[in-house]
Amino acid sequence: MTDYRRLRVALLGAGAVGSQVAALLLKHGDELADRAGASLELVGIAVRDVDAPRDVDLPRELFTTDPEPLLVGSDIVIELMGGIEPARTSLLQAINAGADVVTANKALLATHGPEIFEAADQVGAQVYYEAAAAGAIPIIRPLRDSLAGDRVQRIMGIVNGTTNYILDRMDTEGAEFSDVLAQAQSLGYAEADPTADVDGYDAAQKAAILASLAFHTTVPLEAVHREGIRSIDKQMIDDARHAGYVIKLLAVCERLPGDDGWEAISVRVYPALVDRAHPLASVHGANNAVFVQAEAAGNLMFYGAGAGGVQTASAVLGDVVSAARRHIAGGVGVGESTRANLPTVSIGHVTTRYQITLEVDDRPGVLATVAGTLSDGRVSIATVEQTVIDPADAAGQPGPTARLVIGTHKAREQDLSETVQRLAESGVVERVVSVLRVEGD
Amino acid sequence: MTDYRRLRVALLGAGAVGSQVAALLLKHGDELADRAGASLELVGIAVRDVDAPRDVDLPRELFTTDPEPLLVGSDIVIELMGGIEPARTSLLQAINAGADVVTANKALLATHGPEIFEAADQVGAQVYYEAAAAGAIPIIRPLRDSLAGDRVQRIMGIVNGTTNYILDRMDTEGAEFSDVLAQAQSLGYAEADPTADVDGYDAAQKAAILASLAFHTTVPLEAVHREGIRSIDKQMIDDARHAGYVIKLLAVCERLPGDDGWEAISVRVYPALVDRAHPLASVHGANNAVFVQAEAAGNLMFYGAGAGGVQTASAVLGDVVSAARRHIAGGVGVGESTRANLPTVSIGHVTTRYQITLEVDDRPGVLATVAGTLSDGRVSIATVEQTVIDPADAAGQPGPTARLVIGTHKAREQDLSETVQRLAESGVVERVVSVLRVEGD
Repeated sequence: MTDYRRLRVALLGAGAVGSQVAALLLKHGDELADRAGASLELVGIAVRDVDAPRDVDLPRELFTTDPEPLLVGSDIVIELMGGIEPARTSLLQAINAGADVVTANKALLATHGPEIFEAADQVGAQVYYEAAAAGAIPIIRPLRDSLAGDRVQRIMGIVNGTTNYILDRMDTEGAEFSDVLAQAQSLGYAEADPTADVDGYDAAQKAAILASLAFHTTVPLEAVHREGIRSIDKQMIDDARHAGYVIKLLAVCERLPGDDGWEAISVRVYPALVDRAHPLASVHGANNAVFVQAEAAGNLMFYGAGAGGVQTASAVLGDVVSAARRHIAGGVGVGESTRANLPTVSIGHVTTRYQITLEVDDRPGVLATVAGTLSDGRVSIATVEQTVIDPADAAGQPGPTARLVIGTHKAREQDLSETVQRLAESGVVERVVSVLRVEGD
Repeated sequence: MTDYRRLRVALLGAGAVGSQVAALLLKHGDELADRAGASLELVGIAVRDVDAPRDVDLPRELFTTDPEPLLVGSDIVIELMGGIEPARTSLLQAINAGADVVTANKALLATHGPEIFEAADQVGAQVYYEAAAAGAIPIIRPLRDSLAGDRVQRIMGIVNGTTNYILDRMDTEGAEFSDVLAQAQSLGYAEADPTADVDGYDAAQKAAILASLAFHTTVPLEAVHREGIRSIDKQMIDDARHAGYVIKLLAVCERLPGDDGWEAISVRVYPALVDRAHPLASVHGANNAVFVQAEAAGNLMFYGAGAGGVQTASAVLGDVVSAARRHIAGGVGVGESTRANLPTVSIGHVTTRYQITLEVDDRPGVLATVAGTLSDGRVSIATVEQTVIDPADAAGQPGPTARLVIGTHKAREQDLSETVQRLAESGVVERVVSVLRVEGD
């Protein structure tokens, strides 16, 4: 075996991803050395509890509860602890000690990314985070490097496996949200506290990271509009199918061209209707996919496993090899590209198509009133479908007797929401069943 | 605007891709400078004929027929001439003068890659070629970097747009090969001399590049088994559809594990049957896609435009920005990773499933003879479908009266081809209609 320069690699955290990273690093060490042109020596694994059960067997002597010695003496530090602290402090300490760092910590990057990148710039270190946005799917390098000469117009990403699993099961099995969530929890696809996933927090963090890369702009997490999937019920899934759509939780990062070269971006996460012929509609189960529209490249899609210990470990180890190659090649790290500095618009200024489902009284003049209210609100109707509601569904109670499904042309969110509010108060609408955006055209 | 360090960029070739590269570089210069941290100054465009018609208007003063001054004084040289010479000599000259080079020249890399990479290593330069394998689709960085810590097991790529267009039209319209080829030529999707595309040469070059990256091994073009699509007729497409398959020209790069840790690879290009439920089956028109199976990451797919001037220019410009960033960061280039040095096995040692279509006499004992011949040849039958041939099809001539479609389990190519030969000579088989491999499981 070639006598390579030895690089000291430290690992912080040995959970589902970390334990796989350590195992693969030990198992494929010789092979990775040949690829990196450097020997990757795992010098220690810092954990809170050395005796905690792990997914894989690892040499006990590598474990320590004291990260300090690892942070100051390593060439490459892999942070897989998750959460903000102590991950943030440890990463900064490693960077300041001259290490390149690899992290899958989307929460940290979405909230403290600029601080970490700035620290790396100061010392010429590099921050790698291929695993932070879409698990095993290579999306960071494509956006950061391959598309660096292009202008990304829009990203639509299915970047949360748990919610895609839930929505997919609701679609294919006709099940209710709460039942599928319970099932997902028992299978380990969803956490006991599913908030981060089902309320869109995880997807919003990833959206902030993707948008920052795509638009060469620091996008703070607060700039991401976020809605989750708790409000999605069986009826909405069925209605979507009937209209040729599927409901997906999307992270949408969009460039909004204005007058005179003025530009802004919108970054948002919400459940949206996607045409069943769109490539994103075929992303099933817990898989992820990122659909990218760029000015020159056209439409691209990246598909694969968005989570999972060993899958995510693949992305982390790719970063470790890259960091090692950089150490051997010399030079300073390449900082984040954020000089475009585009403003983010609030959700009210975003335009999309909508599908509005209303329950109304089936009597003369109702459709005219609804249509008039929409028109007054600058919401243009593309399609209308009125169906009589089966009296059996109404449980004998007096109430709405017709259902209106209105597809709109592109409308401004603020106009739309004000108009829906007026419809709700119009006296002819008994119930606003749902208002969903349509994405993908 | 920030006062960036100026980098001199030279362009060789101003065809469909080159003219778009020049136009975008000029149009988005300020933006690209912000991203690269360097000002990208297009210092000249070397062409054979200054007055040749171009797709876009470019400043005439940039053009020259003499590449020499551009090759010695530039920081980044973009080679988009195509072909082996003078592209090879020019690239080597640029590298030896200290430039980083960007190329989309798959023919050159597949035949003279090692020479070019070695020259770059000698001077610490870097060779970028994101556009050489799948047009606008970012696949080089994902394989080279993102998956550098993983073990790629198999790549199945639709990497030639022309043949995918032809096969897709044959499938969706029931047209014959020659008619669709003529149509593709009139639309500009196929060259007047379609050999490079329809006979698989272009796909074989790309397969060599992808396999080299995926397996960390220099794969010479001669090691790639190559078959084109001229033999695919309407009947084969119909039979495939009937059996739930679609025919795609695939570039397959496969790791073959042997005993005792011995490993080899197979790299091959041929039309194959792909299950209609496989993601590759949904790649329509002239689009490309690369499906990657890796030990840790699982299944990944990369999808987009595999050709086109402006689309490919996106990948080229991404490389230019990367090269500029590297110039600013300092250090030497990262060489190609080829130390795994895996042997390539010949096609005879490859195992796949097959679908064999035979015309036979519909008389007692025929199926037994066919089954016995397959069994003797170590080819195990998975499915058999026998249908009576409509006498009207036989045009009144005496001849075969039944059609046998046999799906096999995995069999070794050499066993299979010898067995088919024996079937052809067995006296019970009137005609071997087709033998197609089944890929994707």
